[in-house]
Amino acid sequence: MANPKIAQLAGIGRRSLLRSVATTVAALSVAQYVEAQTSEQPLASWNEGPAKQAILDFVKATTDKASSSFVPIEARIATFDQDGTLWVEHPLYTQVIYCLERVPVIVKSKPELVNVGPFRTVLTGDRSAIGKLSMDDLLKIAAATLTGMSVDQFASEVRGWLPSATHSRWNRAYTDLVYQPMLEVMAFLRANDYKTYIVTGGGQDFVRVYADQVYGVPPEQVVGTAAGTKFGYDKGGRPFLTKEPKLLLNNDHAGKPEGIHLMIGRQPYAAFGNSIGDQQMLEYTKAGEGARLAMLVLHDDAEREYAYGPANGLPESRIGTFTQSLYDEAKKSGWPVISMKNDWARIFPFE
Amino acid sequence: MANPKIAQLAGIGRRSLLRSVATTVAALSVAQYVEAQTSEQPLASWNEGPAKQAILDFVKATTDKASSSFVPIEARIATFDQDGTLWVEHPLYTQVIYCLERVPVIVKSKPELVNVGPFRTVLTGDRSAIGKLSMDDLLKIAAATLTGMSVDQFASEVRGWLPSATHSRWNRAYTDLVYQPMLEVMAFLRANDYKTYIVTGGGQDFVRVYADQVYGVPPEQVVGTAAGTKFGYDKGGRPFLTKEPKLLLNNDHAGKPEGIHLMIGRQPYAAFGNSIGDQQMLEYTKAGEGARLAMLVLHDDAEREYAYGPANGLPESRIGTFTQSLYDEAKKSGWPVISMKNDWARIFPFE
Repeated sequence: MANPKIAQLAGIGRRSLLRSVATTVAALSVAQYVEAQTSEQPLASWNEGPAKQAILDFVKATTDKASSSFVPIEARIATFDQDGTLWVEHPLYTQVIYCLERVPVIVKSKPELVNVGPFRTVLTGDRSAIGKLSMDDLLKIAAATLTGMSVDQFASEVRGWLPSATHSRWNRAYTDLVYQPMLEVMAFLRANDYKTYIVTGGGQDFVRVYADQVYGVPPEQVVGTAAGTKFGYDKGGRPFLTKEPKLLLNNDHAGKPEGIHLMIGRQPYAAFGNSIGDQQMLEYTKAGEGARLAMLVLHDDAEREYAYGPANGLPESRIGTFTQSLYDEAKKSGWPVISMKNDWARIFPFE
Repeated sequence: MANPKIAQLAGIGRRSLLRSVATTVAALSVAQYVEAQTSEQPLASWNEGPAKQAILDFVKATTDKASSSFVPIEARIATFDQDGTLWVEHPLYTQVIYCLERVPVIVKSKPELVNVGPFRTVLTGDRSAIGKLSMDDLLKIAAATLTGMSVDQFASEVRGWLPSATHSRWNRAYTDLVYQPMLEVMAFLRANDYKTYIVTGGGQDFVRVYADQVYGVPPEQVVGTAAGTKFGYDKGGRPFLTKEPKLLLNNDHAGKPEGIHLMIGRQPYAAFGNSIGDQQMLEYTKAGEGARLAMLVLHDDAEREYAYGPANGLPESRIGTFTQSLYDEAKKSGWPVISMKNDWARIFPFE
């Protein structure tokens, strides 16, 4: 299923179906395990420090009935970016890898694409050329790979693909590469009656496939970039929905608060991100009255994960960009920055 | 605030702010009261008969662990159309009345509209001419009256308007004119761990203003026709969202299952409607595996409410159309039809 050339590009290994099934079961247990552990010791994988303290203080202030910052249960909304905030986004977004790997299948059904720019590039397997594809090219590929399928067929494709693809650095499924400390934040907030939402620039239908199992977040609490669907009937008269190329919601940057309004209709009390794509969501969250928490994950741990972006003194990366100006805004606006290196005693559940 | 000409057209009376406040408080208590009563006697306002029995049977089958139709709690989703299913939709949709009443305010700020077709018609107060406005004209008016405001300003306008406007037949706020038996269905489903959603052709932002208080449905469980918003900053640098004229989701007919997929991402197990605008939602619901419930409210009680549409042998109405072919599909597909006249012992909470 996985294209070895692209797998190589993205640093993807392969493994047997048997192992992948085992991992899926393990992933399920992780979310449940974290949930169970939280009541005894919240944020167990966090080192003591201002980041951990900010979360503890926020939850205390908003859930203590005697506090002036008390928030009624129904208004307790927390939103989380996914790529780089909840799981590894390097060297490529997982969904981009999925789309690239689907190119040969797409080209087989639409041979005319062989000679169309980005498709041809992907098929050559030329690692450097693929790495230089523009975001527009990637969107073209995404549109071609994601549309025209029924939503059920798409979900089933992704469900089948996830355990078959692995990240070569850890030789593990992408769904294993979630940040244990962030799972703990989600579990801790839920234990305090917060509804946790994923608000991602990634595809809503893609993330919904595994969000429940991996993060304990049900499909209706996943807000993502969304294309339209079209209602119709199959030959037997049974109704179904087909994925359309029409973009409804570009859920990144300013699109995040817009998506939150569309899908949730309430301003979050807490929001977590890691890049300029999350900036407006954090600003929108902090603009609400009362105690609000906006936090940024800084990738500064090249040893255990990655260190990238200007905030680490590195050139700007195409993904997960944490600019110096975002860092400055965080400082100025009182958004605690989470140092993966210093604040997290443990990065992954499997450690 | 209310335009007397339009009020007359729509059969709207007026009353003092004092009474409206009392009604708002009463509306709140109704939802809570129904919730509390349900555990002792579910569906108390329903007469014995196939419609009531269908609901009882469905809930029993899907919540009994020993049943082959058992549905896990997280998948228990029920969707409700609003106009004509949860509250009175005659003689005009409440939101249309709101838009018509806002026309003078809009024209004051944009005087050039005085001579634009539908606006001129509304301003004349010519009841018959206004009654003949096309759906396109009404949408033009809606777009003009709803866009350009901040989402907070819009919510605050609607919140202020609702208690000021009354339905002259009952001389009560529109939010009082909800169907007691349907409140009981919602409460009964929620008592059995169903998440209840409103899935309406009406405006999502409009319905969200009162859905929690009136129906016990929180904003994030209201799926409606939705326009885009635009993120920006006010002069003080504070972020806010403005309503845009761009239509994102036309949540009616085929748009209902499309909206359900976008906003919920799961197929409902139960769906309730009353017109051809709900047909695809009901089909989509029944297309799922296992026990699924699709029901239609038939307005056949001219004495206590209204009787309209071809299924009553009357000419087709512009709103809430229950065609003969929908009636036939319900018969053929096993969608229980709820006769307001025969199945409901009581129509409104205030009776």
